[in-house]
Amino acid sequence: MSKQKRYFLTEDEIPRQWYNIAADMPVKPAPMLDPKTKQPVTVEQLSEIFCVECAKQELNVTDRWIDIPDEVREMYKYYRSTPLVRAYGLEKALDTPAHIYFKNESVSPVGSHKLNSALAQAWYCKQEGLTNVTTETGAGQWGTALSYASNLFGLNAAVYQVKISYEQKPYRRSMMQLFGAQVTPSPSMSTRAGKDILTANPNHQGSLGTAISEAVELARMTPEKCKYALGSTMSHVSLHQTVIGLEAEKQMEMAGDYPDIIVACFGGGSNFSGLSFPFMRHNFLDGAKTKFIAAEPASCPKMTQGVFEYDFGDEAGYTPLIKMYTLGHKFTPANIHAGGLRYHGAGAIVSQLYHDGMMEAADIPQIESFDAASLFAKAEGIIPAPESGHAIAAVIREAIKCREAGESKTILFNLTGHGLLDMAAYDQYLRGNLVNYQFTK
Amino acid sequence: MSKQKRYFLTEDEIPRQWYNIAADMPVKPAPMLDPKTKQPVTVEQLSEIFCVECAKQELNVTDRWIDIPDEVREMYKYYRSTPLVRAYGLEKALDTPAHIYFKNESVSPVGSHKLNSALAQAWYCKQEGLTNVTTETGAGQWGTALSYASNLFGLNAAVYQVKISYEQKPYRRSMMQLFGAQVTPSPSMSTRAGKDILTANPNHQGSLGTAISEAVELARMTPEKCKYALGSTMSHVSLHQTVIGLEAEKQMEMAGDYPDIIVACFGGGSNFSGLSFPFMRHNFLDGAKTKFIAAEPASCPKMTQGVFEYDFGDEAGYTPLIKMYTLGHKFTPANIHAGGLRYHGAGAIVSQLYHDGMMEAADIPQIESFDAASLFAKAEGIIPAPESGHAIAAVIREAIKCREAGESKTILFNLTGHGLLDMAAYDQYLRGNLVNYQFTK
Repeated sequence: MSKQKRYFLTEDEIPRQWYNIAADMPVKPAPMLDPKTKQPVTVEQLSEIFCVECAKQELNVTDRWIDIPDEVREMYKYYRSTPLVRAYGLEKALDTPAHIYFKNESVSPVGSHKLNSALAQAWYCKQEGLTNVTTETGAGQWGTALSYASNLFGLNAAVYQVKISYEQKPYRRSMMQLFGAQVTPSPSMSTRAGKDILTANPNHQGSLGTAISEAVELARMTPEKCKYALGSTMSHVSLHQTVIGLEAEKQMEMAGDYPDIIVACFGGGSNFSGLSFPFMRHNFLDGAKTKFIAAEPASCPKMTQGVFEYDFGDEAGYTPLIKMYTLGHKFTPANIHAGGLRYHGAGAIVSQLYHDGMMEAADIPQIESFDAASLFAKAEGIIPAPESGHAIAAVIREAIKCREAGESKTILFNLTGHGLLDMAAYDQYLRGNLVNYQFTK
Repeated sequence: MSKQKRYFLTEDEIPRQWYNIAADMPVKPAPMLDPKTKQPVTVEQLSEIFCVECAKQELNVTDRWIDIPDEVREMYKYYRSTPLVRAYGLEKALDTPAHIYFKNESVSPVGSHKLNSALAQAWYCKQEGLTNVTTETGAGQWGTALSYASNLFGLNAAVYQVKISYEQKPYRRSMMQLFGAQVTPSPSMSTRAGKDILTANPNHQGSLGTAISEAVELARMTPEKCKYALGSTMSHVSLHQTVIGLEAEKQMEMAGDYPDIIVACFGGGSNFSGLSFPFMRHNFLDGAKTKFIAAEPASCPKMTQGVFEYDFGDEAGYTPLIKMYTLGHKFTPANIHAGGLRYHGAGAIVSQLYHDGMMEAADIPQIESFDAASLFAKAEGIIPAPESGHAIAAVIREAIKCREAGESKTILFNLTGHGLLDMAAYDQYLRGNLVNYQFTK
C-alpha cells in the first residue's frame, strides 16, 4: 500500500553541468555547412544568428560537461528538480507488469520543459549585451518559455507563432503577452520570407520552418542588439535539456530501478535528447542496453519516412545546411494539434544516432495519441500536452507488449508539458471530431 | 545568491491527521439548525444530504485530530506535499523587506487545493456503498476536483456548473467531461429549484447558491445511492483543507521563519481555513500573534458588509440554517471572473472567528486583483487563478506597508490554483476591458 510515488532532488542536487553527448558519440554528427561555400560553419558565422555562447556550444563536440551558469541554475530552482513519478495509476489501467515512470516537466512555471533552454539562452543573450531576442513557436510552449525568461532577464522578446496554432490556441498568445512579449502570427507581412510565402499561398497556415525564417530574418535586421533563439533541433538546445535526464538518472537510482526503455515525443528532438542522452552514455560507455524510442506523429514521420541528407532548418533557406533526417524544408505538415511536432527535420545529433542504430522511432496517429492522453489523464490526473500524448501512446504499446509477454520491463518517459491550453483539442476529441492525417510527401 | 527557493516534505512527512479547530476555539461555532424545528441538526439529518462520515465530522467540535484515511493519504502522494515557495521574485518586484512565502496548491493534478477535500469525500462515499455524487461548481475548480476523485474511486459524478462560468470557461467543462463527469449549466430545467429560478428570471446567470440547490435536490431524489458533496463553507471541508497549513507549519520551520501575517482568498472559507487554522491554534494555545486576512471580492464582501445571522447556504433554502456572515441567500453576486468567490455566505467556524476578532478581512476590487496576479505572473512565472489574485493583492498591500515602515515581516499566502483555464479573463485584462463592480445589496 505505502509505495513511494514521486522522487525529488534537493536544490543542492540539481545538476551543475549539462551533458554534451557529442563528446562520447562513436560517430560524430556531420558538421553544419555554409550553403554558399559548402564549408563547415564557424562560431563567427553561427553567431550572426545566435548568441556567441550558444554558437560555441553548438560546435563543441569535445567537452563532455558544460557548466550551467549560476544565474541559470538559480532560476532552475523555481521548478527543478521536476518530480520523477511512478505511474501506478497507468500501470493499473493497463494491467501491465511493466514499471512505468515519467519525468514531469509540466510543472515548470510555463508548463513545459522548454524553460530549461529558454533560461540559458536568455541569460547568455543578456550577458552578451543584447537587448532583444526573436523566436518562432509552434504549440506556443517554446514561445511562452522564452517570453518568460526574457522578461526575467530584462530582454524584449518578439515571437512568431505558427498561424494555425495562433488560431487554435489564442490563450497561448495571451500568456506570452502577459509575460511582455510581442506576438505575430506567421507567415506575416513583416518579413521578406513571410511576404514571399503569402504571395505564393495567401492561405498558408504556417509551419515551424516558416516561422523560423521570419524570426531569423528579424534578428538579422539588427544583429548588434538582437539574436535569434531556437527551441529545439540545435545541439545546444539538446545540451540544455540534458538537465532532465541527469536528474532522472539520480531519481531512478532513488527508486531502485533502471530504464529498459526510454520514450519521448519527437519534434526537433530536444526533449527526447534531454531525457535520453545521459542514459545513452551508459549504453556507449558502460554496456547498458536501454532502448530509446522517439515518438513522432504518423503525419510528420521524419525519422521513419525521411531521408538522411543535408537540408535547411527553415522554409526560406536562411539557416546553415544541417545533415539530418528530413521530409524536405518545403514540407508543410498536417494541422495536427501537437503543434510542437510539426517540423520537417531532426537535429544533427539525433539524426546521426538514429542512422547508427542507437535509437528507434515509432509513428503515432493523432487519434491514438489522444486515446493515450485521455487514459493517462484519468489514471494520473494530469492532462498531457498533445505532444506528450505521442510519448504516452508509444509507452502504452510497450507496456501492452510487457503484459502479453509477462515481462516486467522498466519504462521511463518524458511528460513534456500539460495540455491545459489545449482543451479545445480535447473537446474535439470528446465529441469524436478528431481525424488521423495520412502522411503524403 | 544561493538561497533555497522551495521546501518539500517527504511522503512520510505528509500529515496523517487533519486538524479540527472547533476543538480549540474559545467560542464554539453556533450549531446548524433545522429550518422547520429550529433545533440543532443531527448527524442523521445531515446525512440525508452528505455521506455519514462527513456529517459526523461536520458536527464534531471535540476531537482535535481526525485521521486521514490511508487510501486518501495514498492519493495525496500524487501531489503532496505541495511546495512552500519563497517568492523572491515578488519581493524584488515590490522592493520590500518583507519575506513572502506561498503554499503552491496549483500543482495538484486538477490545478487547485480543491482536491484535498474531493479525495476525502469521494472515498467516504465509496466506502458507504454509494454509486453517485452530485455537486455544484463556480469557477470549475471544485467540479474538476470532484470529477477526478470520483472517477478514481469508481463513482459517477453529476456537476451543476454556474451558468456564467459554464459560458466563460468552456474548457473547465471539457476537463470535467474528460474525467467522466456529467456537467449541466445551472440554473437548469432538470430540478424544481432550477425551474423556479428560471421562471422568475429566464436570464439568471447562476450563482453558487443556485447550483447548490440543484445539486442537493438531485441527491435527494435517490438518497440511498447518491449524496451531495460540497467544495467549501462546511466545517468538514475546512477540516480536510488543514493538510495545507499542517504541511506549511513544517515547511516554514525548514525555512527558519514563522508567519506574522497569513493571507488567503475567501469564497466560502475552506482554503483560508486550511492554511490558517493550524497556525491559529498557536495563537489560541501558545501565544503566537499571527494576523489572518481573508481577501474577499469588493463586489461580494460578506465579511465586511454582511450580517452575522442564521441564513440558508443555498438560494432555494434546502440546507440547514447556518449562523454565518451573509449577504442574504437571495444575493446574486456580480459576474467577476473569480467565480469561486461568488458566494453569499461564509462557513460557521470562520464566521465565529471573524466575529470574535480572531481574523480580519480585506475587500479587493477586480482590477486590483488582476494587477496583482499579473505582477505575480511576471515575477514568479505562475499565472494565478483569479481567486488567488485576491490573496496576492492583499499580500501586496501588506508588503508595501512593510516597505514604507521598513519592517521585515513574514507573510505567507495560499496560491490556491493556477489561472491557465482563465486566460480569457487575462486577455480582457490585457485589453483594458475589465471593470470593477460596486457592491449593492
